[in-house]
Amino acid sequence: MLGKSGKVAVIGAGLVGSSCAYSMINQSICREIMMVDRTYDRAVAQALDFSHCMDFTHNRTKVYAGTYADCGSMDVIVLTAGANPKPGQTRLDILEEAESIAKDIVVPIMDSGFRGIFVIAANPVDIVTYMVWKLSGLPRERVIGTGTSIDSSRLKTLLSEVFSIDPRSVHGYALGEHGESQFVAWSHVTIGGKPIMHIMEQHKERFKHLDLEDIARKTKDAGWEIFTRKGSTQFGIGNALAHITRSILNDEHKIIAVSAILDGEYGQSNVCAGVPAIIGGDGIQEIIELNLDASEREKFGRSCEVLSGNINRLTSV
Amino acid sequence: MLGKSGKVAVIGAGLVGSSCAYSMINQSICREIMMVDRTYDRAVAQALDFSHCMDFTHNRTKVYAGTYADCGSMDVIVLTAGANPKPGQTRLDILEEAESIAKDIVVPIMDSGFRGIFVIAANPVDIVTYMVWKLSGLPRERVIGTGTSIDSSRLKTLLSEVFSIDPRSVHGYALGEHGESQFVAWSHVTIGGKPIMHIMEQHKERFKHLDLEDIARKTKDAGWEIFTRKGSTQFGIGNALAHITRSILNDEHKIIAVSAILDGEYGQSNVCAGVPAIIGGDGIQEIIELNLDASEREKFGRSCEVLSGNINRLTSV
Amino acid sequence: MLGKSGKVAVIGAGLVGSSCAYSMINQSICREIMMVDRTYDRAVAQALDFSHCMDFTHNRTKVYAGTYADCGSMDVIVLTAGANPKPGQTRLDILEEAESIAKDIVVPIMDSGFRGIFVIAANPVDIVTYMVWKLSGLPRERVIGTGTSIDSSRLKTLLSEVFSIDPRSVHGYALGEHGESQFVAWSHVTIGGKPIMHIMEQHKERFKHLDLEDIARKTKDAGWEIFTRKGSTQFGIGNALAHITRSILNDEHKIIAVSAILDGEYGQSNVCAGVPAIIGGDGIQEIIELNLDASEREKFGRSCEVLSGNINRLTSV
Amino acid sequence: MLGKSGKVAVIGAGLVGSSCAYSMINQSICREIMMVDRTYDRAVAQALDFSHCMDFTHNRTKVYAGTYADCGSMDVIVLTAGANPKPGQTRLDILEEAESIAKDIVVPIMDSGFRGIFVIAANPVDIVTYMVWKLSGLPRERVIGTGTSIDSSRLKTLLSEVFSIDPRSVHGYALGEHGESQFVAWSHVTIGGKPIMHIMEQHKERFKHLDLEDIARKTKDAGWEIFTRKGSTQFGIGNALAHITRSILNDEHKIIAVSAILDGEYGQSNVCAGVPAIIGGDGIQEIIELNLDASEREKFGRSCEVLSGNINRLTSV
Repeated sequence: MLGKSGKVAVIGAGLVGSSCAYSMINQSICREIMMVDRTYDRAVAQALDFSHCMDFTHNRTKVYAGTYADCGSMDVIVLTAGANPKPGQTRLDILEEAESIAKDIVVPIMDSGFRGIFVIAANPVDIVTYMVWKLSGLPRERVIGTGTSIDSSRLKTLLSEVFSIDPRSVHGYALGEHGESQFVAWSHVTIGGKPIMHIMEQHKERFKHLDLEDIARKTKDAGWEIFTRKGSTQFGIGNALAHITRSILNDEHKIIAVSAILDGEYGQSNVCAGVPAIIGGDGIQEIIELNLDASEREKFGRSCEVLSGNINRLTSV
Repeated sequence: MLGKSGKVAVIGAGLVGSSCAYSMINQSICREIMMVDRTYDRAVAQALDFSHCMDFTHNRTKVYAGTYADCGSMDVIVLTAGANPKPGQTRLDILEEAESIAKDIVVPIMDSGFRGIFVIAANPVDIVTYMVWKLSGLPRERVIGTGTSIDSSRLKTLLSEVFSIDPRSVHGYALGEHGESQFVAWSHVTIGGKPIMHIMEQHKERFKHLDLEDIARKTKDAGWEIFTRKGSTQFGIGNALAHITRSILNDEHKIIAVSAILDGEYGQSNVCAGVPAIIGGDGIQEIIELNLDASEREKFGRSCEVLSGNINRLTSV
Repeated sequence: MLGKSGKVAVIGAGLVGSSCAYSMINQSICREIMMVDRTYDRAVAQALDFSHCMDFTHNRTKVYAGTYADCGSMDVIVLTAGANPKPGQTRLDILEEAESIAKDIVVPIMDSGFRGIFVIAANPVDIVTYMVWKLSGLPRERVIGTGTSIDSSRLKTLLSEVFSIDPRSVHGYALGEHGESQFVAWSHVTIGGKPIMHIMEQHKERFKHLDLEDIARKTKDAGWEIFTRKGSTQFGIGNALAHITRSILNDEHKIIAVSAILDGEYGQSNVCAGVPAIIGGDGIQEIIELNLDASEREKFGRSCEVLSGNINRLTSV
Repeated sequence: MLGKSGKVAVIGAGLVGSSCAYSMINQSICREIMMVDRTYDRAVAQALDFSHCMDFTHNRTKVYAGTYADCGSMDVIVLTAGANPKPGQTRLDILEEAESIAKDIVVPIMDSGFRGIFVIAANPVDIVTYMVWKLSGLPRERVIGTGTSIDSSRLKTLLSEVFSIDPRSVHGYALGEHGESQFVAWSHVTIGGKPIMHIMEQHKERFKHLDLEDIARKTKDAGWEIFTRKGSTQFGIGNALAHITRSILNDEHKIIAVSAILDGEYGQSNVCAGVPAIIGGDGIQEIIELNLDASEREKFGRSCEVLSGNINRLTSV
């Protein structure tokens, strides 16, 4: 692991990119943030707006606008620029557009000399993460998608409401595609360390109305519930990006569900999907293989099939 | 001062309101945030998006959607809903619309039993603060506008770049209207405790290109510079709102330039303008009267005239 | 739950009490801290020393010295004053002295009108927690001992080193007595959500040298390892106290292993022992009953026997 | 400025060193802390105690014990080990002992290849800072004493009580020796940007009992007031050390009163005394020369004379 100097570039100065930057500023996660956008003036405007926060924060974060050519010295590049889903489209519909955008971004960044770590939220995130891996030529551990980190957080929030506890005392993962084919690994969901399956067995009466299928569906659809009401989702994902970035910069070795390129793990290869991984100064330090039950293994396999199908349609990589 | 329970309502779930809430969540400023919006679904969407942050923050903040009728138990109401300036309009052009909106909001909030503190960012902020004071019937110390807090922060940021120091080591205020007639009180600007006037005298050569008029103009126009490039300003003001709210909830007694109803201070009455004030659990604990020099006093007077002129045009208060 | 005003009294201005206060100041957990000590001058000195921190922290915390008679308006009382273990003594040896001290403290505090929540670190913590419950007459959910919160943290730290991951990605509990008879509930220890038992089975070769008995022993003895080298332990326990206090003041509903008065849970009654509990604005919102395996149930029973034996020796309660 | 990797060594695992480390852990200031102590077991015990905090903090900080030989890769070395003042002794009485200790520490640290920045709290801090500069051969900007940072904080705290405002809204410095000959630069003390001299003139009646001489005396004696009551001072100075370290690691360019080697500033050379300085990634980026009034200039000169007198008595440097 190289000595990190705390420099992060945020590519895409839209709602997700700016929410990520705002979260990093308010949580004092890095030393410098460079905003980059296709529309340079938008990057300038966001950097200017952020610079006026500094009288009100605990740490100082230097924020400025830059270009792909300035990315060479960055520790982490947060990639949020991409094709925007329109109502009716699935995340995968926008594949082709995404591919072209990724190319336009990754090639000049690598030309700048960048050798750090990509953290990617652009959708369809699993596919874009795969693209960036191929386009960048970086080792797979240095290319990380937000994947099901945000879905896992949504799962915890939903369960925290059911059980009236802090979401941080729930543990659990949504796995696979950040999209339709994802699933909740109920075999590994715990509340305060207690498997949810035990809780439901023990307290049959109390939780008789708790419908896990319904929770899993709400987990998957939470983004859509937000999107239909306000036309965007940015705050949860912004914090997820900040969280992953902190775990890298601070070499925390936190276990987070991210989109990772699989090379044998879970019996899958040459595909990128949401799995728990140890995130540290080198990026993905290790992928955690859960002992999924038979039904979960099947769901994981099916989700990877969906993702592989889309990867195979890519032309440039 | 009542025991604060850490409950904040954010009225207006648009860019400013949501940025304020996001900042409060990421800085762990309060225990609960209730999002309120004319479009209830938008408040619901923002609350849902925020709820997914909780896996990634140090403290838990409960965020939910509510209505004016639910405001009775709040400690602080952050008011961001208002008329939006359009290009070409001055902040004062939108007076009439603002008045009608303020009425629609403040009356039901007071009917809910609210007796806490208003913190207002809706523009034209000085006038809206005055309106809310009149409409609410609350004592003047419980109605606080963001006023020139954000302009003062912009001033510090500009000077921090000139002098290559941390903005928090600059001290100074923009005063008067949050708008065209504002001015910088250069007599009270210090860098690390050293009056800027002394610095410029002492280092004539080094700072010969430093043009204070230019800095003052850039301070005033910074919001516009951002607005013309991205169509909004939300992050700096969001942090300013969070900062004022923290100083109230935590009874910090920080001195912040806010828009306050004047009752004799600076020789002005029945007007609301940006002045430094001690912000604590009771709201404005005291207004600080700087010893402005003659030219600054004159500018302050003229700014208050502009504001009074607009206040006199209000019909409902 | 009452509206919390963020006032905490720390009883005992020695190493543990002052470390707890320092942690609360540096983490911005409460609004006011009142230091109380048998030696009033020591409380004054600590408050004065803490007051000089305020130029260097994000939030302001007011710190001052007070007496038991000033405790009436506090939200939380952190009780750290007690009998100090001497080398060779067990925590239980100092029972009698502890009883007399608890009486001297709790009676005047209740006379002051205090109706908040006790958080207790004075040793033997399970027994002192029981004493304070009896002496105060408060409902059991308002009397909380740090119990095995610190032992659980030590367990996570030890496992984080073995597995090279963030301690916050380990989940698990030491349960029962904060002392010799405690045990680790291995059936509920997970690494990134994955049961440690599965990990060891799956990676037999990799973890063949991992000896859980040894980890459990090191968990139990960690305090003693520190104590023999520097004559005190204060930082971990100070942070544990701050953590529990935050979960109360902020009504977080975090699940933490604390010493709780049992009333049927785990088949135990009229005894106080380390168990996972939901900590919120009302104190202990609910005790979590894990499905311990047979051997763990037996160990828990034996630990409670040890504790009951000591409780029965108390004279005043 | 080199890329900082966030590694700090704390030399001296006593009350000041451990308080500094605890503050850095609770404020998430660095990535790693290495505790070093003459008594290796004490460093081990502190590191072990700190490691148990990690379940309760926002960021993870790795803490471990090390030796002088391990200091080569550190960004900052916080030096707290030194001769302890005994009642009746002045800080300067312990000069000789301090010199010998400094030598024993600095020589092996430089031999380890250390090229970072020293931040020094060991007393007499101005003299020890001078020693470390000479012994290390580092450029003067890389050797920083806490100097009057803590006295300045005490001054702000005292004034915050008089004026009932947040200490962070007071600006001002104690300058010169961290000891008897220090003085308050009243000409540069401001409350919310307003010179204290103006406030007292304007509000003669209100502040007629405010005795600046008394405040200056209490500022100077605050450490002693604490010391006589509890035998140590550690929390304020621990936070001051953490604050300076953060400004370096995060390249904040905050202006802080520190002990700096003077080379012409304030008309002084070859002496180390408390002056405001810009603290950033290179250490002291620049010393701020205030326009002291005649009486203050004289006091500064006299304080430097005292310090020079002591420096001249050093044998090794």
